[in-house]
Amino acid sequence: MTNPDIQESGAVRAPVFDAVCARADAASAAQTRLARTSGAERAALLLAVADALEAHAGDIAAANGEDMARARAEGMDAGKLDRLRFDEGRIRQSADGVRHVAALADPLGEVVRGYTLPNGLRLNQVRVPIGVIGMIYEARPNVTVDVASLCLKSGNAAILRGGHAAGGTNAATLAVVRAALAERGFDPALVDTVDDFGREGAAAMMEARGHIDLLVPRGGAGLIQAVVRNSKVPVIETGAGNVHIYVDRSGDLEKAIPIILNAKTQRVGVCNAAEKLLVHRDVADAFLPMCAQALASAGVAIRADGTAHRIIEETQIRGVDLAHATEEDWDTEYLAPIIGVRVVGSLDEAIAHINRHSTGHTEAIIAEDYSAVEEFTQRVDSAVVMVNASTRFTDGGVFGFGAELGISTQKMHARGPMGLREMTTTKWIGYGTGQVRA
Amino acid sequence: MTNPDIQESGAVRAPVFDAVCARADAASAAQTRLARTSGAERAALLLAVADALEAHAGDIAAANGEDMARARAEGMDAGKLDRLRFDEGRIRQSADGVRHVAALADPLGEVVRGYTLPNGLRLNQVRVPIGVIGMIYEARPNVTVDVASLCLKSGNAAILRGGHAAGGTNAATLAVVRAALAERGFDPALVDTVDDFGREGAAAMMEARGHIDLLVPRGGAGLIQAVVRNSKVPVIETGAGNVHIYVDRSGDLEKAIPIILNAKTQRVGVCNAAEKLLVHRDVADAFLPMCAQALASAGVAIRADGTAHRIIEETQIRGVDLAHATEEDWDTEYLAPIIGVRVVGSLDEAIAHINRHSTGHTEAIIAEDYSAVEEFTQRVDSAVVMVNASTRFTDGGVFGFGAELGISTQKMHARGPMGLREMTTTKWIGYGTGQVRA
Repeated sequence: MTNPDIQESGAVRAPVFDAVCARADAASAAQTRLARTSGAERAALLLAVADALEAHAGDIAAANGEDMARARAEGMDAGKLDRLRFDEGRIRQSADGVRHVAALADPLGEVVRGYTLPNGLRLNQVRVPIGVIGMIYEARPNVTVDVASLCLKSGNAAILRGGHAAGGTNAATLAVVRAALAERGFDPALVDTVDDFGREGAAAMMEARGHIDLLVPRGGAGLIQAVVRNSKVPVIETGAGNVHIYVDRSGDLEKAIPIILNAKTQRVGVCNAAEKLLVHRDVADAFLPMCAQALASAGVAIRADGTAHRIIEETQIRGVDLAHATEEDWDTEYLAPIIGVRVVGSLDEAIAHINRHSTGHTEAIIAEDYSAVEEFTQRVDSAVVMVNASTRFTDGGVFGFGAELGISTQKMHARGPMGLREMTTTKWIGYGTGQVRA
Repeated sequence: MTNPDIQESGAVRAPVFDAVCARADAASAAQTRLARTSGAERAALLLAVADALEAHAGDIAAANGEDMARARAEGMDAGKLDRLRFDEGRIRQSADGVRHVAALADPLGEVVRGYTLPNGLRLNQVRVPIGVIGMIYEARPNVTVDVASLCLKSGNAAILRGGHAAGGTNAATLAVVRAALAERGFDPALVDTVDDFGREGAAAMMEARGHIDLLVPRGGAGLIQAVVRNSKVPVIETGAGNVHIYVDRSGDLEKAIPIILNAKTQRVGVCNAAEKLLVHRDVADAFLPMCAQALASAGVAIRADGTAHRIIEETQIRGVDLAHATEEDWDTEYLAPIIGVRVVGSLDEAIAHINRHSTGHTEAIIAEDYSAVEEFTQRVDSAVVMVNASTRFTDGGVFGFGAELGISTQKMHARGPMGLREMTTTKWIGYGTGQVRA
């Protein structure tokens, strides 16, 4: 596998490794001071960053224009070009996002648990920052702003490696953020980049155990797996979604269609978009023709198993793009207007299929039967399980977290959308009066 | 580094890897059923396991007698022999521990957060088991029982690799636990071992990403670092403790002595035992002579920095074992009746020394000054910070968790003593009525 943004293996040259560690260590020193600031100070800092982004929107947009022109000349596809765009309107949106994060409750200092032991020792488990968070992401300039603001709000430092295609935009954005930090008396080392080292910078981050506390990859499956496989720094696996919707025999079929269309088509290139549809055989004959019609009208191609293929084919829907699914389809995240459709004999079969093929991101059930809902929500082993609702709701913003660092598909530390709380750890403090252990 | 219990690198043979994965997969299948049992069923299961351990205490103790005889013949030291001993008295204690875990509140199903979105979608974040937990530990048979009971109580399966010296004891213990599972209609695959594959079994566990969800090493620093460095399965780093006590200039010196003695000598071979003493220079002349006297009486050797060495030497304490500390001392976990002593010029210097040399386990301050306590507790970056209390309290049992899986010294997922709650993850469930994203 080759990835344009990270060097997977091979030697990281010592000067690069040392330079990346030095930046992480400077970030860490600055972070210990940031951790001691009040929530009000950090909120005010974020408002200043937002104002600075708006004040310099022209400069950032100009840098982005150059990135866009180069990417276009290099033949970048329309979807990626759209994600790369960071024009003045989007910069203003991004600044508003920073203001939204500024207004969120301070996650630090929360007493998660607290009680007094029989010997009188008072124990408090208190929320504290993680430290230095490394982020390796693809060419989406808004992520630079999101991560910087979430890290600063939660008392963490950030070391960033953005996609090379957004290099100019990220440099311009970081210059503005760092200048805003310095102006308010904060150390600019709190938000730093390794973009100047190219792919080797990302490889160095993955080696920097003891310097970077947590590494979060955000982007396509290739990028994420490369980081998960190679990093010596603790990683949170994010994002890949092979998202299923199951229509139970008890499902309200009228309710199902808009949910499926929304989950599949509202935005096709995102991790919470539906990729697979499982339909109980008792309702397949009634449901699949109307569903296929709706999907065809929305321009969604269908990859069907034998039974589903037969039912849809017999219906002779005008304009339907129908093909037979292969075994590979069940494990594929299309990120495109394609959906895999399979008829299952039972709720058990649906759950077994999902737990075998899902990436553990989000699944949904369309059902009116209470016991079916209970079985599905309890037994499906994914970060998020929706009942009679679109899978597109799996999102830090929608969940009320403000921006999100990413969506964790692993079970350790955080699962599902990661907001401020997921960017913290805890510390136990024991207040005693001379207690010793008997 | 060589470790008798795990093979660090080199090929794991395919048949061994496949066999270990097959056991983990069987454990996983059984775990999905266990996760659906009620808390009452799991508590009753634990009581049956406790009864079975007592009923077969003779068999287990006999197997342990053979392990002990072999270890003694091979020259195992007294401390390790003591940890290896699992006689009928200790087995009964262990069974009581299982009953204690049985009586704890069920961690599963807790709604960690729950709220309704503006569109009416009801979100619940619910506590669920992690899945299959792998444990690699040294020759301490009580850990086998602790881990099995904590896993079963929290709805997880366990794959165990115990120290080779306890092989016969662990096999006898597991046979009893698995028989108790089968008798109550639970799948014995829930608690399995890879001891029959020796060191290669541990190496296979570290490779079994996707089969084992979490790997926890418990034992000496060598074992832990070998697992952290080599595992492809997510690991929680546990246990190593280079524990500091700082006596502030405001400290109550009479209070300090019993705390230091307790922390250093109550049990010298454990991770929460004090290893270093930092003393503010303003009280060094008054405190160090009385402290050195107390340590000498307790048979604790002192490795002192220049200033501390001079003060203690001048006092001419009878029987004191005094030597100059080297730079290496500050990073050493002695696990022996030795303490490193250093005089510091300020609270800042103490905090900087600790954050540089500590393993992040537990530190303590002896102080009466409010601001010194605040500074120390906020700025020391360790899992547990004690004020005027012994560091020996960092323990899952003391904290009220029942038994403990280990003490996490990392920041991801869990920090400090790990009990039932730390053996869970969460799942988001969204209850809708047809919501789609605009």
